[in-house]
Amino acid sequence: MTAAVFSNPILAGLLGDEELSSYFTAESDIEAMLAFETALAEAEAAEGLIPAESAAAIAARAAGFAPDIASLADGTARDGVVVPDLLRQLRSDLADDHAAALHKGATSQDVIDASMAMRMQGVSLVLDRRLAALVDGLAEWSIAAADAEVMAHTRMQAARPTRFQRKLSAWSDPLVRCRLRREEIAPRAFALRFGGAVGDRASLDGKGDAIAARVAEILGLWSAPGSLHTDRDGIVEFGTWLSLITGALGKFGQDVVLSLQNEVGELALQGGGGSSAMPHKQNPVGAEVLVTLARFNATLVSGLHQSLVHENERSGAAWTLEWMILPQMAMAAGAATRTAQDLLGRLSLAEATRTG
Amino acid sequence: MTAAVFSNPILAGLLGDEELSSYFTAESDIEAMLAFETALAEAEAAEGLIPAESAAAIAARAAGFAPDIASLADGTARDGVVVPDLLRQLRSDLADDHAAALHKGATSQDVIDASMAMRMQGVSLVLDRRLAALVDGLAEWSIAAADAEVMAHTRMQAARPTRFQRKLSAWSDPLVRCRLRREEIAPRAFALRFGGAVGDRASLDGKGDAIAARVAEILGLWSAPGSLHTDRDGIVEFGTWLSLITGALGKFGQDVVLSLQNEVGELALQGGGGSSAMPHKQNPVGAEVLVTLARFNATLVSGLHQSLVHENERSGAAWTLEWMILPQMAMAAGAATRTAQDLLGRLSLAEATRTG
Amino acid sequence: MTAAVFSNPILAGLLGDEELSSYFTAESDIEAMLAFETALAEAEAAEGLIPAESAAAIAARAAGFAPDIASLADGTARDGVVVPDLLRQLRSDLADDHAAALHKGATSQDVIDASMAMRMQGVSLVLDRRLAALVDGLAEWSIAAADAEVMAHTRMQAARPTRFQRKLSAWSDPLVRCRLRREEIAPRAFALRFGGAVGDRASLDGKGDAIAARVAEILGLWSAPGSLHTDRDGIVEFGTWLSLITGALGKFGQDVVLSLQNEVGELALQGGGGSSAMPHKQNPVGAEVLVTLARFNATLVSGLHQSLVHENERSGAAWTLEWMILPQMAMAAGAATRTAQDLLGRLSLAEATRTG
Amino acid sequence: MTAAVFSNPILAGLLGDEELSSYFTAESDIEAMLAFETALAEAEAAEGLIPAESAAAIAARAAGFAPDIASLADGTARDGVVVPDLLRQLRSDLADDHAAALHKGATSQDVIDASMAMRMQGVSLVLDRRLAALVDGLAEWSIAAADAEVMAHTRMQAARPTRFQRKLSAWSDPLVRCRLRREEIAPRAFALRFGGAVGDRASLDGKGDAIAARVAEILGLWSAPGSLHTDRDGIVEFGTWLSLITGALGKFGQDVVLSLQNEVGELALQGGGGSSAMPHKQNPVGAEVLVTLARFNATLVSGLHQSLVHENERSGAAWTLEWMILPQMAMAAGAATRTAQDLLGRLSLAEATRTG
Repeated sequence: MTAAVFSNPILAGLLGDEELSSYFTAESDIEAMLAFETALAEAEAAEGLIPAESAAAIAARAAGFAPDIASLADGTARDGVVVPDLLRQLRSDLADDHAAALHKGATSQDVIDASMAMRMQGVSLVLDRRLAALVDGLAEWSIAAADAEVMAHTRMQAARPTRFQRKLSAWSDPLVRCRLRREEIAPRAFALRFGGAVGDRASLDGKGDAIAARVAEILGLWSAPGSLHTDRDGIVEFGTWLSLITGALGKFGQDVVLSLQNEVGELALQGGGGSSAMPHKQNPVGAEVLVTLARFNATLVSGLHQSLVHENERSGAAWTLEWMILPQMAMAAGAATRTAQDLLGRLSLAEATRTG
Repeated sequence: MTAAVFSNPILAGLLGDEELSSYFTAESDIEAMLAFETALAEAEAAEGLIPAESAAAIAARAAGFAPDIASLADGTARDGVVVPDLLRQLRSDLADDHAAALHKGATSQDVIDASMAMRMQGVSLVLDRRLAALVDGLAEWSIAAADAEVMAHTRMQAARPTRFQRKLSAWSDPLVRCRLRREEIAPRAFALRFGGAVGDRASLDGKGDAIAARVAEILGLWSAPGSLHTDRDGIVEFGTWLSLITGALGKFGQDVVLSLQNEVGELALQGGGGSSAMPHKQNPVGAEVLVTLARFNATLVSGLHQSLVHENERSGAAWTLEWMILPQMAMAAGAATRTAQDLLGRLSLAEATRTG
Repeated sequence: MTAAVFSNPILAGLLGDEELSSYFTAESDIEAMLAFETALAEAEAAEGLIPAESAAAIAARAAGFAPDIASLADGTARDGVVVPDLLRQLRSDLADDHAAALHKGATSQDVIDASMAMRMQGVSLVLDRRLAALVDGLAEWSIAAADAEVMAHTRMQAARPTRFQRKLSAWSDPLVRCRLRREEIAPRAFALRFGGAVGDRASLDGKGDAIAARVAEILGLWSAPGSLHTDRDGIVEFGTWLSLITGALGKFGQDVVLSLQNEVGELALQGGGGSSAMPHKQNPVGAEVLVTLARFNATLVSGLHQSLVHENERSGAAWTLEWMILPQMAMAAGAATRTAQDLLGRLSLAEATRTG
Repeated sequence: MTAAVFSNPILAGLLGDEELSSYFTAESDIEAMLAFETALAEAEAAEGLIPAESAAAIAARAAGFAPDIASLADGTARDGVVVPDLLRQLRSDLADDHAAALHKGATSQDVIDASMAMRMQGVSLVLDRRLAALVDGLAEWSIAAADAEVMAHTRMQAARPTRFQRKLSAWSDPLVRCRLRREEIAPRAFALRFGGAVGDRASLDGKGDAIAARVAEILGLWSAPGSLHTDRDGIVEFGTWLSLITGALGKFGQDVVLSLQNEVGELALQGGGGSSAMPHKQNPVGAEVLVTLARFNATLVSGLHQSLVHENERSGAAWTLEWMILPQMAMAAGAATRTAQDLLGRLSLAEATRTG
């Protein structure tokens, strides 16, 4: 039992995801925030808002920056966000005019949200690649299964024999839709939200839109038509996408658990989990975990919707709630795709099923 | 306090929605189910699966059908779905061969899901029309407000003056996105899911896909490429859409509540609610209700995600949970759009704000 | 599909509860509110705050009162609560001095919360009686089962034979604990919260505590030490209690569903649900519904916890959210206990299990 | 943004809790599991089930044990629980007869659940101590505030002046009730659940109940009358308790945020958070975080209720979900009590309020 299920040394093997966790380290967060400040300076220099020398100095400072993490932690505890102390550290080694050019016209939320959008886009691409692999794996099994039949079950009762390929489609089709859906939500979920102090880009000499477009392009983010910090629906959509992935794989896991029941014996599992009391058992651990992760994300997604009630021009309370929820949902989707891939490699039709 | 908040005689005025509630009566449900059975017979006749006379007889029977509601209720209590008893009633007045042609190759879930998809599509169009009206109303206010300024608040502290038009955009933009999003999700949310007993269209002489395409066209639904009853992600997307609407309006309501505080006095409200103890008060009832409805849907959407763990070829437990949640979310979105329209008509910038 | 799952003419047989629904009609709500106003007048007369004649006149008015429901609905839509219009109707037929004595020192929330507490207490007693019957039924089965053994399953795999009585304990023990828990939470869950306009009983000439004690006694409610409208934890506890009931019965339902699988055949069910496509099937409808109701309440309970963030002296938004959630949770617990009783009467050990 | 909000190096200062986090390290988990195995051996020796020498050898082995964490992680990934590999490591250095005596008649869930109960009890005592300090702090403020008055607000509108002490009671009373409630739930929440392979204590020569009583006493846990691994209601109660704490403090935080609005200015805050864009601002960071933590736990508690649907004799899926949720809820309650204490020390009535 740990409060950090995805990184706890004992549980990480079960519930963690090494590849995805790299997106959620303090280092990757800081790196993304520095990328934002550098891009902002470059864009503002291009639009003539700050001198090119300042942009260069800021880029150089960011490139060589070694953060004082303890100080960042103290600052975050005090300010609710890491940005003010991060800027203080960055400025401490910049000439005054360059220091003034850093973060010009921006606010903390611009930085944090950009860092989040960049990393969430990265996460989505990792997950998309895994979904593709899962779809491929299920398609291969479908070819191999040919016309094998299994008993269909409706309302938990044996119904009628059907092709096993149908079951494979039921597992695969929702994953295909998740891949398509990623493209639909991308312009909202991975958009740059850049608004300055109160979301109106007021301190940018009327060049706010041009600067925002440049920053988005540099960072590989979508350019949102508006500049409002309160536009959180794209974040809810991304969380929903994550939960649709875990939900689809939870259905897969649940079906596998039911098929592996000793009394059913439709599927066979290579290398199930051992029991401390009953050595004869082979527990379908991975399949159970898929159900767990689906219910976990189904629980958490509610909190993202609660965060839509985002008061005034920026809400500290609703915003911080997103931080507590979204990364965990991403990690759960990571663990689910990883577990599903592993499980798929160890499943086969039971001998009795194959020979009908 | 009632278990039927949207239809209770006392609370309906506050939380109900007369127009939307018409989609959720027993009558409209039965009507939609009859439309499905009629369309199915027509499609099957066109594909030569049943005689044209049977299709005609079924259409005639459906047109003149007066259901025995008490019997439907008993049947639903016994079977978990209304369809078997509904079919029994329909068949009781059909010649044997026509009776056999009714519901041919279909299963209960085909009927219920089609009825749901038809009505949800209707609901979505009503809501879309209201979103358009809200966007228009906010745009008109924006023109009228011209360059009026209000104090922006971030983290619940006065920040800096900004144009009131920015606030109007913050309320309007998410509604515009909800309108666009409706079109994205429509092919999945308002799709015909038609699969027969175990989702494989096996009893349709290989004409299942053609029949499904005809039925979808007759009913004005989208034609889903697959036939699986376990494809529930479109339903989650529709529930998410409903909660994105209530969430956007909850943010609007929360902002209005904060702006109407006596100490802030940025907005003025015509005709607020009265108090039984303090006659001097004007309670911002509608704005509060918008927050309530947002939190209600944010709570319920979790249950739809839980329903994704839909075991085997059809799940009674997960499916029934959808019935308990989705219509309520639709009604909440109805009440929220209705309330927001009313509220918008009664709000204005306070005199002090207008004159700056 | 209906937004009023517990009272819809078709679904009520499956998901409704006739006995419990009587607690949630507009009539029972008004009756309880009148009981509060009458008790308040009686208590205030006893403490000399209003004349005894006024109390008598109020009691007489309440006894013969026929509400104008349409007007109550309009008033609720306007004021957010029914009380101002209810008082207006009551006063319309009272002499001026008696009218002034009505509701003296009280506020809308006093009335609504008292009505809720009275009815929730009634609901809890109905449920408690049913829990007792369920515990008895399981105990009888336990005696009858004697030393019959079933296969225990852990992590969804056959583990080791164990006495069937163990399974019966697993279903019964949580219900016993729910009965005990009802007594623990009663003083907080079924307490009179009476505070007047801003929760300080300020308009009661220093006799507020005495009056509150009298009102609580007359209405059979617990007397809360404080007077604060913002004390909502007792309500969360009651909602938790309801969800612990549905959760315990959801576990029972899930176990029954698994035991009734054709491949397992541990239990036998008399009179399962019929299918529209497959006449040979016996669907375990009641057992599935128990799982549905458990997940429904597990979803809704989150909203009650959200309501704890109850701003200032009284929150319209958080309070209204309780109205939308708590009665439904009570109805779900009603449907679950009713369904479990029915299911229990139709279950038996399968022949093969009985004979080992 | 991190998936481990409570331990991330940057966010821990804002959302973490150093004291509570010590209960959730891998080390403290292993230590508690070793305590269980040692207590079990001691109890089984006292009851004559294993030799006293074996109990002594097991105690010695546990005392000097240095776990191979990487191996534990691998084992957990494979088995779904850490216990089988932990036992393997412990046994590797025990003589064969002592190795056979280790964990005798127990199963993985006995160990994990005992470790959880021990640590949750410890957490509850830390929180209880902090609640007491908060109640004291509020009481001191109440004495100091004497008869100062503030404006009461109902439905977000100024209502009537009331004593500031009333507001303090509204913040304090729910915390007092949480302290009482801890004692009520302790026998269920901090109980030893010890059942062996399938929950029937079958491999303990009829001495299971005596052994369980001894183990509970050694570990300072409550002795549950039953032995069932599926009794999860005590865990839901503990999660509910955690959310009642964060909910009560969320209400406190929300009130503080509203009172600190520049336009209201009822309270004054020393040392608010700084802004990266607007140096003049003092953000009420701690108060906002209290709202965040309340909504976080209100979201997560739903997942614990979902876990009540715990299939058969032990469920891997439902059980693992508890691991993902409960520790986070405890940490959130820790962060909330810590933050509330800090906030309380920095709040005062604003000058204008004090002087009326």
